[in-house]
Amino acid sequence: MRYHKIPDETIGRLPVYLRQLLLLQQQGGVCVSSNDFSNLVYTTGSQIRKDFSYFGDFGIRGKGYDVKRLIKETKKILKLNSFRVVALAGAGKLGSAILGYPGFKKYGFKVSCAFDANKKKIGKKIHGLTVHSDSRINSLEKRKIKLAIIATPSDVAQNVTDKLVKAGVNGILNFAPCTLTAPKKVKIINIDIAIDLATLPYYLSST
Amino acid sequence: MRYHKIPDETIGRLPVYLRQLLLLQQQGGVCVSSNDFSNLVYTTGSQIRKDFSYFGDFGIRGKGYDVKRLIKETKKILKLNSFRVVALAGAGKLGSAILGYPGFKKYGFKVSCAFDANKKKIGKKIHGLTVHSDSRINSLEKRKIKLAIIATPSDVAQNVTDKLVKAGVNGILNFAPCTLTAPKKVKIINIDIAIDLATLPYYLSST
Repeated sequence: MRYHKIPDETIGRLPVYLRQLLLLQQQGGVCVSSNDFSNLVYTTGSQIRKDFSYFGDFGIRGKGYDVKRLIKETKKILKLNSFRVVALAGAGKLGSAILGYPGFKKYGFKVSCAFDANKKKIGKKIHGLTVHSDSRINSLEKRKIKLAIIATPSDVAQNVTDKLVKAGVNGILNFAPCTLTAPKKVKIINIDIAIDLATLPYYLSST
Repeated sequence: MRYHKIPDETIGRLPVYLRQLLLLQQQGGVCVSSNDFSNLVYTTGSQIRKDFSYFGDFGIRGKGYDVKRLIKETKKILKLNSFRVVALAGAGKLGSAILGYPGFKKYGFKVSCAFDANKKKIGKKIHGLTVHSDSRINSLEKRKIKLAIIATPSDVAQNVTDKLVKAGVNGILNFAPCTLTAPKKVKIINIDIAIDLATLPYYLSST
């Protein structure tokens, strides 16, 4: 099994599969057919088989996929089987919502520190976490925190990115609606919380 | 062109293409090659060609895709070429962040009313919008608002869903980390703001 040969496209789809598998497990599902599963994740059965083929054969003849086993294996591939700490930059409304969001835990993430440039926010506790000045972002290097979430306004997001990168962060989840630049070794994922809403109007009159 | 024959899988991918096309346009892009575009949206060139083939041929020989034309056509398919109002249920931290989020506008959405069950929030103005009691969700029927965003805690999300559906809402974007049930004619999309973070650890040591 050559994990490093898995294409980016597959890695981009695996978390979507994982979320659906976790939902199925929550609903008591033990097995899921390739067909049912492909409908749930907006792709084709052959695409799923191809994606999973990079790390083994998890289909059970006549039954489909073993939900529990596939969760375990997908987490392993995505390196989600160990606990990871994440830094948050920007403790405004979105940042506060992120701090209180219960959904990070199931992927093994814990937001363990928060930074803001606003003096009114520094020292304040949000969901049990003290907000620190963004001038202290450099402390991440010592704490070996490699992942960060940016929830700042767009106009300061690049400056914050530069500070995070300088502190050794090499994975950034960006909620600010702007394009960030960083060295190639830093993986930036841009989030658009409006994008899924864009699927809905299509269905409004066709149902 | 039989728009109604487009499969759900394609409709699920079109907003992802649209977001990327809007980003390319913002960066001054006029044309994008099929190959470059497929890398940007984590899929294959043949998948993109297949998806776009449902509504015409937008490739330019030797140049790739015309960004502006593809944006226009994708918006048309997704019924995003007209302005749409959306209701928000739950005006807590996440709800407030959603009200202040600038990213809905580019898809033609405007959150035009907000509801909450918490008496402390009712009557309060958030980003210029007055929060109303959730007992007034039934007013959506009169206002013909068909789309809603749920940003309530999980334990009340189903109750809120029932109220929204009763008021004629048939498209719901759910941020509460729980599974909602509704009649088949209602399209529910579940959002997981943690899912994209799940892609990052894979890249941490492979870069």
